Amino acid sequence: MAPRKVMSSTVVFLVATACSPGVDTAREAQQLLEIDRAWAQIAATGNMPDSVLSFWAEDARVVLAGEPVFQGKAAIREMLTDMASVPGFHVTWTPEGAEVSVAGDFAYTFGSNEFTAPDSTGELMTTKGRYITVWRKEADGRWRCVMDYTNPAPAEGPTQ
Amino acid sequence: MAPRKVMSSTVVFLVATACSPGVDTAREAQQLLEIDRAWAQIAATGNMPDSVLSFWAEDARVVLAGEPVFQGKAAIREMLTDMASVPGFHVTWTPEGAEVSVAGDFAYTFGSNEFTAPDSTGELMTTKGRYITVWRKEADGRWRCVMDYTNPAPAEGPTQ
Repeated sequence: MAPRKVMSSTVVFLVATACSPGVDTAREAQQLLEIDRAWAQIAATGNMPDSVLSFWAEDARVVLAGEPVFQGKAAIREMLTDMASVPGFHVTWTPEGAEVSVAGDFAYTFGSNEFTAPDSTGELMTTKGRYITVWRKEADGRWRCVMDYTNPAPAEGPTQ
Repeated sequence: MAPRKVMSSTVVFLVATACSPGVDTAREAQQLLEIDRAWAQIAATGNMPDSVLSFWAEDARVVLAGEPVFQGKAAIREMLTDMASVPGFHVTWTPEGAEVSVAGDFAYTFGSNEFTAPDSTGELMTTKGRYITVWRKEADGRWRCVMDYTNPAPAEGPTQ
């Protein structure tokens, strides 16, 4: 093989591996759905703060219908503590889809959720809703949620 | 310069340009904020369907509080037509932030919005809210919105 050909192959190989360093976006999306499912299971146990909190990024923004924006981990921790103190409070969600950016640094998941809390008469009421979460892969290689929006579904009919 | 050094410099240069082919993520984020602002201005004119519709991807998902999910352009067109037929209907939004993935293929914007529509007595009522939109850069180089979630702000106090 001539030296020029050797060099050209080397360059092409390096470019290819450096530009998509093993990012299989379909596989990443499946892994992220698993992470989101695991998060929902932990949240559903009601043992809120620390384990649940670790899924959000430091600068995350949580936006629930009718609530002020919870920005950053301190505010989110307070939100979780408040939720955990509500008698009968329960939350869970079911991821239904995910998409990952080509470089594997950015993604979203979406799905349906259920919040249970006492209504004004003290009776426990479950509200079905929909959510979207945007995720960033951080320096330690872990996906963390940066944006978390949820809204209520119609009172009747399908949530999705 | 020794031949080994020349080759090494060439490889580094090619890797660097191929991995971020001109993607200045801060500039892309500014451009996307401009696009989102332009979209809001068009929507605020009330001339809904075609020009407003062109900002969404074919498979986009619009999720408004208390409404069924509008999935795909046909469903979104119907939603826009219904909104435009409501006497006094008005919508606008103000983007407040954006983040773009390293390869420039994926992004989100978020901000506050206002929907005006008649209440049950026919009186026009404005509801303030918050939104997040996820964008994908499509094959023609245009950013299009793929996910669009909005929810109401607290009745009193800041929306963000």
